[in-house]
Amino acid sequence: MHRIAVYPGSFDPVHNGHLDIIERAGKSFEEVIVAILENDAKSGLFTVPERLALMRETVHLPNVRVESFHGLLVDFMRERKSRILIRGLRAVSDFEYEFQMALMNRHLYPEVETLFMVPAEEYTFLSSRVVKEVAGLKGDVSRLVPPPVIRALERKLT
Amino acid sequence: MHRIAVYPGSFDPVHNGHLDIIERAGKSFEEVIVAILENDAKSGLFTVPERLALMRETVHLPNVRVESFHGLLVDFMRERKSRILIRGLRAVSDFEYEFQMALMNRHLYPEVETLFMVPAEEYTFLSSRVVKEVAGLKGDVSRLVPPPVIRALERKLT
Amino acid sequence: MHRIAVYPGSFDPVHNGHLDIIERAGKSFEEVIVAILENDAKSGLFTVPERLALMRETVHLPNVRVESFHGLLVDFMRERKSRILIRGLRAVSDFEYEFQMALMNRHLYPEVETLFMVPAEEYTFLSSRVVKEVAGLKGDVSRLVPPPVIRALERKLT
Amino acid sequence: MHRIAVYPGSFDPVHNGHLDIIERAGKSFEEVIVAILENDAKSGLFTVPERLALMRETVHLPNVRVESFHGLLVDFMRERKSRILIRGLRAVSDFEYEFQMALMNRHLYPEVETLFMVPAEEYTFLSSRVVKEVAGLKGDVSRLVPPPVIRALERKLT
Amino acid sequence: MHRIAVYPGSFDPVHNGHLDIIERAGKSFEEVIVAILENDAKSGLFTVPERLALMRETVHLPNVRVESFHGLLVDFMRERKSRILIRGLRAVSDFEYEFQMALMNRHLYPEVETLFMVPAEEYTFLSSRVVKEVAGLKGDVSRLVPPPVIRALERKLT
Amino acid sequence: MHRIAVYPGSFDPVHNGHLDIIERAGKSFEEVIVAILENDAKSGLFTVPERLALMRETVHLPNVRVESFHGLLVDFMRERKSRILIRGLRAVSDFEYEFQMALMNRHLYPEVETLFMVPAEEYTFLSSRVVKEVAGLKGDVSRLVPPPVIRALERKLT
Repeated sequence: MHRIAVYPGSFDPVHNGHLDIIERAGKSFEEVIVAILENDAKSGLFTVPERLALMRETVHLPNVRVESFHGLLVDFMRERKSRILIRGLRAVSDFEYEFQMALMNRHLYPEVETLFMVPAEEYTFLSSRVVKEVAGLKGDVSRLVPPPVIRALERKLT
Repeated sequence: MHRIAVYPGSFDPVHNGHLDIIERAGKSFEEVIVAILENDAKSGLFTVPERLALMRETVHLPNVRVESFHGLLVDFMRERKSRILIRGLRAVSDFEYEFQMALMNRHLYPEVETLFMVPAEEYTFLSSRVVKEVAGLKGDVSRLVPPPVIRALERKLT
Repeated sequence: MHRIAVYPGSFDPVHNGHLDIIERAGKSFEEVIVAILENDAKSGLFTVPERLALMRETVHLPNVRVESFHGLLVDFMRERKSRILIRGLRAVSDFEYEFQMALMNRHLYPEVETLFMVPAEEYTFLSSRVVKEVAGLKGDVSRLVPPPVIRALERKLT
Repeated sequence: MHRIAVYPGSFDPVHNGHLDIIERAGKSFEEVIVAILENDAKSGLFTVPERLALMRETVHLPNVRVESFHGLLVDFMRERKSRILIRGLRAVSDFEYEFQMALMNRHLYPEVETLFMVPAEEYTFLSSRVVKEVAGLKGDVSRLVPPPVIRALERKLT
Repeated sequence: MHRIAVYPGSFDPVHNGHLDIIERAGKSFEEVIVAILENDAKSGLFTVPERLALMRETVHLPNVRVESFHGLLVDFMRERKSRILIRGLRAVSDFEYEFQMALMNRHLYPEVETLFMVPAEEYTFLSSRVVKEVAGLKGDVSRLVPPPVIRALERKLT
Repeated sequence: MHRIAVYPGSFDPVHNGHLDIIERAGKSFEEVIVAILENDAKSGLFTVPERLALMRETVHLPNVRVESFHGLLVDFMRERKSRILIRGLRAVSDFEYEFQMALMNRHLYPEVETLFMVPAEEYTFLSSRVVKEVAGLKGDVSRLVPPPVIRALERKLT
């Protein structure tokens, strides 16, 4: 039985906490698809093609590939024949929202199983929102995001 | 002593978790007023008259009536001679916000008592926001909202 | 329809936060039974007859009476023809345990409805355990418990 | 690559929420070992051999086996060549403790990955402690635990 | 050694819970700087100069001064030679966000220490957002904010 | 004004998370007293004189001294003329209990101010209980506690 795990998110932009989860997922599952959500309603700092490029420049694991999707995540998972949904958990507030989404996704696609992973402690405080805030105020984010994102933030925010 | 309970909310749109609380409140109190908040600042998916109509099409309990209000909830409750405010609790994050609102409402109207009710487990993950997100992506919400809302969402989102 | 609410607890001993909830419950329901749990496993500081006496010395509201019970709470409620279970909520940790108990009690007795009430802010930090700890270390608890309990703690802890 | 997941716990006794997680884990991983902790310090209602027998009477999935262990969980996992640790999450309070244990286990065995799974909503309120409390008070637990446990509880508690 | 503590925030507008923390901080540290964040992205109800004026009209403690800043808080603190950052904590949801910010600020400026203080219970439910909501609906906020803010809200919201 | 901060706890035994807080407190306050609670009711793994010796062997900061106390913490603080109480916060569950204790201590001694500090992320999962559990199962705790405690645990647990 070949198991494909999907790790979805906005990744606007990808940071080291995401990369930590991707590496851990790559070790725990045969194949991992990093799935970048195309969300019409929310316009991010980076466009979806930019996020795809940044993720692909950064992630070079043999069993991990990067895609974007629109529509319902569970529909994308059905198409990719994946029944394993990976999410990172940092904090209680994450947990509650993620818990509700896990139950909703199970409602929409009963075979899907959400598996929560714990990032390294040093990334507990990291989120894309905080990265953008700090970079926007000219703070140093070089130990928080991978090199392609450092350069992209510099271009975007000047 | 005749006790009137008010169950306020945005109900944009009403879902099965709300209906579960309304039914439970209807059994616990002599009279229940479902009070739809008219909020100038936040424009919803449905207008307040649409929400009123959807709620009235759905709720047919002899001791429950549906109204909308604007201004402070406690002023509406004073006018209706109600001192019992009903709220549903699903999760810890709900709890904290609701707790602060309960204390604020008590500050504004010391006689008001907020009573929190627990919906059936199967509605733990339900919120109007999630219903709109899933319906907007063409996901099936037919077991999450009552039939009039299914039809209204189809009309609204196509 | 006559509604009887049951407010169960260990009340070892009763403190001002309990009394605040009892008074609020007395205003919101026709009849309130304060139900002191007889728990074989846990031996408290006060015996159940002592707790009953302290509660009865303290609570003098016309529609509130005080009883003790053993066995399942829901069986006691069935006997008293009560379908409304009152609990106070102070904090998130309370909330989670109480939430689980509310669902368990509904499982055992589907007609029962748990209603959570919020005590006055000044009692947020109060619990019977903390009262006993502070009194045991000769701290002043005179603004935390009613006079009969002050005297009983002095007798018990010297 | 063959992946073995370990699902550890006290299982004193196993309940339907545990069984739900075991079934889900059995679908998500090639092989699952249910690992019952032998804990000298805490004496349970059932002995470890009784818990083993009850679990084995109940779980009949081809890729799931049941064992007990003593000592550190990570040492047991190393011996079984497992790097995947499964835990169920019901609530925020679960989450915090489990989070700390996941970080401690990673500290002791860096290759181990803890994956959290979400049980069906109907088991949100279930815990072995609550099962024992209700059964001890002669409450009906027949929809909360599997048939062998119902019989064992009856024998044990009369 | 002279220790300067910085108490940053939006203060849009300052309320009695803020004032309670300022007074407590003034007693615990030699010097306190109340630092009003100039945030381009978020436009508040009051302009930064208005917030500064309201704060200065209200706070008259010999060792407390009021300033505004833009850019990163840690850069402002470096300039003022402060290594102590004061924040008030009301609730669990506050706590998580504040915890992440404390770790991020330590990442950006390792010498900075965030110290969390607890406001008086009676301000547990107070936030600038709730003050603006209630005042916007003509609710009475006179016991929640200082007199200059009462008058400013009246001018602003009519 | 000379400010003395008290950092109380059981410290049974002291671990690296405690030491991190002590070092941070030593930088933020003129003088710090680490205060080991003598608690008759709870017997620990180490006696209070052993805990005192382990703490004194470990902490060598010029402005930090180590003492034990019995009775109410606030009485000890009054005697030492300290009005600043330091506590470390790791998690939400910590937060709630600590919040209640902070309010209770303020009730007993209105001049006392509790200040919460955040340990380094790498100690998020550390507690004396977990150290004892892991050491009791022959797990390696050498990166979790200072050298004197490693040796003491070895002597105690064999």
